[in-house]
Amino acid sequence: MTTTLITGGTVVTAEGHTLADVRIDGERVTAVTAPGAAGPAARAVDATGHYLLPGGVDTHTHLEYPIDGFTTRTSDDFHTGTVAAAFGGTTTIVDFTKKEPDHSLYDSFQRRIEAGSRRCVVDFGLHAIAPPLEQQADALADLRRLAREGVSSWKFFMAYPGTQMVDDATLIHGMRLAADEGVLPMVHAENGHLVADAARRLVDAGHTSERHHHAAHSHISEGEAVHRAVAIAESVGSPLFTVHVSSRWAAEEIAAARARGLDVWGETCPQYLLAAYEDYDHDGPEAAAYLCSPPIRERANQEHLWRALATGALSTIGTDHAPFYLGQPDDLPPQKSRSTGYFPKVPNGVPGVEERLMVIHQAGVVEGRIDLRRFVDLTATRPAKLFGLYPRKGTIQAGADADIVVWDPAAEHTITAAGAHSRTDYTLYEGMRVTGRPRKVFSRGELIVDGDELHATPGRGRYLTRAAPDLA
Amino acid sequence: MTTTLITGGTVVTAEGHTLADVRIDGERVTAVTAPGAAGPAARAVDATGHYLLPGGVDTHTHLEYPIDGFTTRTSDDFHTGTVAAAFGGTTTIVDFTKKEPDHSLYDSFQRRIEAGSRRCVVDFGLHAIAPPLEQQADALADLRRLAREGVSSWKFFMAYPGTQMVDDATLIHGMRLAADEGVLPMVHAENGHLVADAARRLVDAGHTSERHHHAAHSHISEGEAVHRAVAIAESVGSPLFTVHVSSRWAAEEIAAARARGLDVWGETCPQYLLAAYEDYDHDGPEAAAYLCSPPIRERANQEHLWRALATGALSTIGTDHAPFYLGQPDDLPPQKSRSTGYFPKVPNGVPGVEERLMVIHQAGVVEGRIDLRRFVDLTATRPAKLFGLYPRKGTIQAGADADIVVWDPAAEHTITAAGAHSRTDYTLYEGMRVTGRPRKVFSRGELIVDGDELHATPGRGRYLTRAAPDLA
Amino acid sequence: MTTTLITGGTVVTAEGHTLADVRIDGERVTAVTAPGAAGPAARAVDATGHYLLPGGVDTHTHLEYPIDGFTTRTSDDFHTGTVAAAFGGTTTIVDFTKKEPDHSLYDSFQRRIEAGSRRCVVDFGLHAIAPPLEQQADALADLRRLAREGVSSWKFFMAYPGTQMVDDATLIHGMRLAADEGVLPMVHAENGHLVADAARRLVDAGHTSERHHHAAHSHISEGEAVHRAVAIAESVGSPLFTVHVSSRWAAEEIAAARARGLDVWGETCPQYLLAAYEDYDHDGPEAAAYLCSPPIRERANQEHLWRALATGALSTIGTDHAPFYLGQPDDLPPQKSRSTGYFPKVPNGVPGVEERLMVIHQAGVVEGRIDLRRFVDLTATRPAKLFGLYPRKGTIQAGADADIVVWDPAAEHTITAAGAHSRTDYTLYEGMRVTGRPRKVFSRGELIVDGDELHATPGRGRYLTRAAPDLA
Amino acid sequence: MTTTLITGGTVVTAEGHTLADVRIDGERVTAVTAPGAAGPAARAVDATGHYLLPGGVDTHTHLEYPIDGFTTRTSDDFHTGTVAAAFGGTTTIVDFTKKEPDHSLYDSFQRRIEAGSRRCVVDFGLHAIAPPLEQQADALADLRRLAREGVSSWKFFMAYPGTQMVDDATLIHGMRLAADEGVLPMVHAENGHLVADAARRLVDAGHTSERHHHAAHSHISEGEAVHRAVAIAESVGSPLFTVHVSSRWAAEEIAAARARGLDVWGETCPQYLLAAYEDYDHDGPEAAAYLCSPPIRERANQEHLWRALATGALSTIGTDHAPFYLGQPDDLPPQKSRSTGYFPKVPNGVPGVEERLMVIHQAGVVEGRIDLRRFVDLTATRPAKLFGLYPRKGTIQAGADADIVVWDPAAEHTITAAGAHSRTDYTLYEGMRVTGRPRKVFSRGELIVDGDELHATPGRGRYLTRAAPDLA
Ligand SMILES: [Zn+2]
Ligand SMILES: [Zn+2]
Ligand SMILES: [Zn+2]
Ligand SMILES: [Zn+2]
Ligand SMILES: [Zn+2]
Ligand SMILES: [Zn+2]
Ligand SMILES: [Zn+2]
Ligand SMILES: [Zn+2]
Repeated sequence: MTTTLITGGTVVTAEGHTLADVRIDGERVTAVTAPGAAGPAARAVDATGHYLLPGGVDTHTHLEYPIDGFTTRTSDDFHTGTVAAAFGGTTTIVDFTKKEPDHSLYDSFQRRIEAGSRRCVVDFGLHAIAPPLEQQADALADLRRLAREGVSSWKFFMAYPGTQMVDDATLIHGMRLAADEGVLPMVHAENGHLVADAARRLVDAGHTSERHHHAAHSHISEGEAVHRAVAIAESVGSPLFTVHVSSRWAAEEIAAARARGLDVWGETCPQYLLAAYEDYDHDGPEAAAYLCSPPIRERANQEHLWRALATGALSTIGTDHAPFYLGQPDDLPPQKSRSTGYFPKVPNGVPGVEERLMVIHQAGVVEGRIDLRRFVDLTATRPAKLFGLYPRKGTIQAGADADIVVWDPAAEHTITAAGAHSRTDYTLYEGMRVTGRPRKVFSRGELIVDGDELHATPGRGRYLTRAAPDLA
Repeated sequence: MTTTLITGGTVVTAEGHTLADVRIDGERVTAVTAPGAAGPAARAVDATGHYLLPGGVDTHTHLEYPIDGFTTRTSDDFHTGTVAAAFGGTTTIVDFTKKEPDHSLYDSFQRRIEAGSRRCVVDFGLHAIAPPLEQQADALADLRRLAREGVSSWKFFMAYPGTQMVDDATLIHGMRLAADEGVLPMVHAENGHLVADAARRLVDAGHTSERHHHAAHSHISEGEAVHRAVAIAESVGSPLFTVHVSSRWAAEEIAAARARGLDVWGETCPQYLLAAYEDYDHDGPEAAAYLCSPPIRERANQEHLWRALATGALSTIGTDHAPFYLGQPDDLPPQKSRSTGYFPKVPNGVPGVEERLMVIHQAGVVEGRIDLRRFVDLTATRPAKLFGLYPRKGTIQAGADADIVVWDPAAEHTITAAGAHSRTDYTLYEGMRVTGRPRKVFSRGELIVDGDELHATPGRGRYLTRAAPDLA
Repeated sequence: MTTTLITGGTVVTAEGHTLADVRIDGERVTAVTAPGAAGPAARAVDATGHYLLPGGVDTHTHLEYPIDGFTTRTSDDFHTGTVAAAFGGTTTIVDFTKKEPDHSLYDSFQRRIEAGSRRCVVDFGLHAIAPPLEQQADALADLRRLAREGVSSWKFFMAYPGTQMVDDATLIHGMRLAADEGVLPMVHAENGHLVADAARRLVDAGHTSERHHHAAHSHISEGEAVHRAVAIAESVGSPLFTVHVSSRWAAEEIAAARARGLDVWGETCPQYLLAAYEDYDHDGPEAAAYLCSPPIRERANQEHLWRALATGALSTIGTDHAPFYLGQPDDLPPQKSRSTGYFPKVPNGVPGVEERLMVIHQAGVVEGRIDLRRFVDLTATRPAKLFGLYPRKGTIQAGADADIVVWDPAAEHTITAAGAHSRTDYTLYEGMRVTGRPRKVFSRGELIVDGDELHATPGRGRYLTRAAPDLA
Repeated sequence: MTTTLITGGTVVTAEGHTLADVRIDGERVTAVTAPGAAGPAARAVDATGHYLLPGGVDTHTHLEYPIDGFTTRTSDDFHTGTVAAAFGGTTTIVDFTKKEPDHSLYDSFQRRIEAGSRRCVVDFGLHAIAPPLEQQADALADLRRLAREGVSSWKFFMAYPGTQMVDDATLIHGMRLAADEGVLPMVHAENGHLVADAARRLVDAGHTSERHHHAAHSHISEGEAVHRAVAIAESVGSPLFTVHVSSRWAAEEIAAARARGLDVWGETCPQYLLAAYEDYDHDGPEAAAYLCSPPIRERANQEHLWRALATGALSTIGTDHAPFYLGQPDDLPPQKSRSTGYFPKVPNGVPGVEERLMVIHQAGVVEGRIDLRRFVDLTATRPAKLFGLYPRKGTIQAGADADIVVWDPAAEHTITAAGAHSRTDYTLYEGMRVTGRPRKVFSRGELIVDGDELHATPGRGRYLTRAAPDLA
């Protein structure tokens, strides 16, 4: 078992930061010591002047992920997507399992683990998506079985009527079952009927260009769905996790629920904090780059989400990484250009798994909106806790997996798609200058990224059986 | 045309009160004058020491009203119910039209007018109930037609899945249509799935006695539905009227919407202000007397509703008068005792159209929770405005219908079922002592109630074609 | 006793509006009748196509009013100011009595009545201002005496430390005394220490030009004072009236108090609704025209005040009419130009008593922010009620004073200082186009304004002994 | 330098807990390691089955503290009080310096350090209390000097007019100075005038027995003061720490400020969480045991404070330890019995420094209101951060002072005054059964408490020069 000693760095956790040495034996951290107090080691890594961050935990990715009735899929596969994650300092992802047409949810899940295990370079978990009961009558039974095998989070869609949306009755039964099984229910919170109605009216009025996607997804429809999900969670006694909170209204609903003492949590994503409707408020197909649901909102909305992060209303930052090409590679099904000029059929999703830590560190920590330990909490510690991975993931302490990012807080870098590793042809942050980036990335004690070099073979990433959510 | 002069009384309106004489020519008020300034009249009524109130307007009654899939009906017909109204000082009711099984909504409405016109002794209007679209695919077309014929309010059920509940898509389309047609959409606001789930669990656990009805209808399920209805109203640009607000939570949702400037209004009912769960919190069939939906709630809830009335969060007091017998008369379909010991099948509804003004005057005005002009506003003026009847109804001023109650504020009276006129065998207010009651009641200039005597023939009441809601 | 009949008009009250004739005998309205039903009269006034509004009630004026330690005074005297009021349709004002240096508060009040009685052309009342106890140790005794003689409102300053500000102890004792005596306590709500501190820092930094007045009076300082006044009112059990609410924050504090059921009321003024900081956000002495306290705030603040008026958070619109010249007439003490370039010494106050009804009708009713009956309530009925003048003033009904404005809703008019009657040389509304203005104004049955002509002699206005506030 | 190894315990921090060994060299922790990975040590402590908690940090004590114009003092001196702290697991206190009559604030501070340094057995810091400027005109200069010498927190009284209360002007200047100097301003938040007025009225009405103290200190007066302090903090740009929050209202004001993103923090105390007015709601001198300010409130208030702790509205739990005897020892100035039957003169204060961790662990952690890491955060980590002591105090990590409590979570114990170490004759928690208590207490590596034995000499405690508050 190799011993590694990382010296001279500042260990940052969600609680605080301190100068300390970190000793790694094999895959685990075995000691955090006062500088110089750790004893000898086979391998020494000098991190002087750098931060040692827990490896990032991104609990919202969609790799090689089928959408729109399996008519297309995201452009990253488990390999390219996790390589991008690794270069960005993220050593754990939690992706999704969705019921496939000719397979039960449970079988789909087995196939998904297999795919991930062949290609991932960092560790991965899987949330299960609850299908509408008309697609699989006994889906709740499969969910229960998955829970008992370590799938401790299930996702419910309140949007997309006719395909993924479940009605309130299913939400009620599903969230009660989650509470019984020690599972964290997640919701995509938009009132699907309000969105569908607005979209239809826009199309009827001839407003079909890409940017109108924004108008179809109102703040009200998101706020309403969050309120309803909270009401159901409180009624059945379950916790609740709201993914990709994009709107001030939704954040305020979550804040109100938390102030009442409910176990209600929310995630937002870099694209809602850093991009804005004003960036794509023009007719033309290039607006497709910004299309995701909920939509990227008005610039004035951003500050409310930052405040929600700073005050604890929102608890994690995931990416909802769901890349598509603006162009059309030969080997991929139809990408963003599939329905130029007609927003309802443009694949929804944006890339971001590699940029997450850098852009949030820049806009959050460097620009003073959040402090360093909150940054770590939002991007690693809290997601690890909520999704049953802490303290194995999400912290640097004796006993934890040695997932460590040597972060250079002074490094200057310009974000570009060309310089990144996700399989797509754009980034929303093209040209953004950041100070602070990963220099080395350890995953279970292995140095998988060293500067610009990758030292990881496909399949080294392991599937993570997860514990119950830690909601404390 | 007979001239009547009512002298010596204090005319009370929603604005204020003042000593004045009221002159009536035929069916209308023609002058309100300083005492003695009105000139001679054929008939003089001395109202010295009494109030002259606008005739009460109760916009929530269910007379000869079929429920539960037309398996039973309320025990009052249009005659007995409006006689009770008249004795209580209510000269206008607005009841409901519901689609009948073998008739379209529009045809059902015509039949309902006919029935009312044959039997009513006071004027009546009708709200239209929007059926679920699976019951009548073109129901929205009928609603539009009714609007254009003066049915300026439509009711939507957010409760009772499988029978009356409409889904969010229908709410969205229906409320937008209402906005387009100048109609006030009304909602019964309870999340039907939450209620059904709770009821099923109670039954599964063997908690079937009458009082458990209360537990099946949570505050959350009412608050959630109000929030959602407001979100839809705001989305489509329609006003909203929430009937029978029973819960503090629901009242707070309405208050919040109003504070944001939305045209959102709420009604509560005497039973929520004066009766309490503590009154029927015991196993036994007599609890059936209290069963209605939403349920009569905890005593501590009452003060919040009173405050909501006092502060303007709630705007009207209707009765939701839907009487059933505790016993079983031969000539009526199954009443409250239909399913003794099994709350889900007990007919929902309580009587109250006769008691409304007396009990609210007592608990509100005499006991100091609201003042006299707010009392008039809540029980006559505001409902008349919202439902397109003002200034014809709901006020005493030149030009208005001469619907006037000579109210003796010093009269002492004990409420009893035996002494009342509704066709039923109980009242929730049995034994309640009140100070203040009607002495004479005029309807369109006719003295229809004089002390204990009725001077009104069935059918004298007229159907009221209504204008658009006055939301100012 | 002359009988006058005003026919063909639409009588507007706080409750509603209806076509009706109004009969006046002597000083009082004796009947409101259906058109044509009033009988013969000595004098007929044809108001066809016009509104009949209750004469305006402005409960916040400062005529011939000494400020800044009696070093200067407002430019209107009781004659010019009430002539302006009359032309604007305002037939009642309530001005202020302040303790004069060599007189007790009670004696100052007697002298003030005398001055008003000599010069007013419309009826007037007087609020008493509570002096700091260091200025008159037994001031509370005088206040009690005034209350018993019909001065049913007292004003307390929470601003201006060292001159008019009273400390919390005086507020507590004064407001309790008000509660005991049936008096409505009024507050000028700004935290005087916060304002003084901010002003001193601005001056220290050389920011002394007129516009910096705005920066010295923060939203927080106003919101804080309202919150504190509410806390004291609730503690001692008194009602509370907050004059000249200028800030969204302050309005929200009032709304919150009212939602809790407290008798807390607020006034705002036309200048806060229609003028904005952006109008004077430039260095230069002309900014002095806008200086008043609290300051005229940012344009974005206006909509919140309008919403507060529409939703009932704010209850009256007074003017705080306190005119000063921009120029310097020979016969007046130093006016706005007294301390050019040094904001702390510029006399605070703006004119507006004549323009009030026209500009609020335009921006409120014509432009759709409030409806006609709310307009009447805000500008006449509610102030009359709160300050003990209703139903004598503030309504059109049998028994009320015949203070009636024949208002032409179609008349087009351009506001100018040159065309107005207040003794000053500017208006904040110069050039504003309005639709709707008074044509004739009756005061106690006398036609005092007829088109452009005044028919009123100085001293015809009467001092009004007032009843207790009507808070219902 | 001695090396100590504590093995087998569960290290608990504000972030989480994990099985780990802790190595101590001299006064500091030098490593936290995986079990067995720490290497050999001179001294081994077996903590199997126990928690290792950071030593408690109580930032609110009053030892040998003069009150009421120096007419009496608390009964614990720096020795007895810190012995009690040590036995309770608290290894750091922050007490107060108050200006003495014949000494400047600065000189008083020096004398206070000297006294503490002679007698304390655990480390101690001192907050400075800002005297009213009439007591020392240049007090702000002294405060600035103290800040620069490491007194990074100042306390302002908004209560006790005439003795300790400062007016708003002093609050404004003092809090701005605090912001400039990197100091955390603390407030005792009660509106002193409201309290004094209420007390006077109670006395006037003959309600002088001890329990009436409660009625003199309303919720409103506390909520008002918090709101005002927040307004001033926001105005001047300073953070704010509210000591001893006792009322739901006050907690809600803090929550609202935090939700707006302000650096506003609140402390509550065990007596507000665990004792209640119902405990002393009877006339009789024994109620004096409960008298402190703000008062111990109604039992229904407790749950709101617990919720505020759980949701993050409140951030620390201090004790406000200010013991007095119910009896009267010969060697102490007048204690609780000083003015039997007359509440205004009863010395205010209750003991609690020894019981704090045990009673909060019991009612909070054992009974499920908060989890273990929140317990550590509230009682050690967060107070250390806010008062400039972290990471030296308040955590267990490499580099921190070795202040460690070996806590036995299974130990059963009954709280009694007889079994405790504070110099007083009662405890509010007499007879309370708790599960969980300290077994061993280390302070800077020294084992100062071992079971029932004390190993500490007076004066071993060191005065703590503090850094600026860590508000992240
Ligand atoms: Zn989604
Ligand atoms: Zn997603
Ligand atoms: Zn209903
Ligand atoms: Zn009904
Ligand atoms: Zn003022
Ligand atoms: Zn004024
Ligand atoms: Zn204190
Ligand atoms: Zn204290």
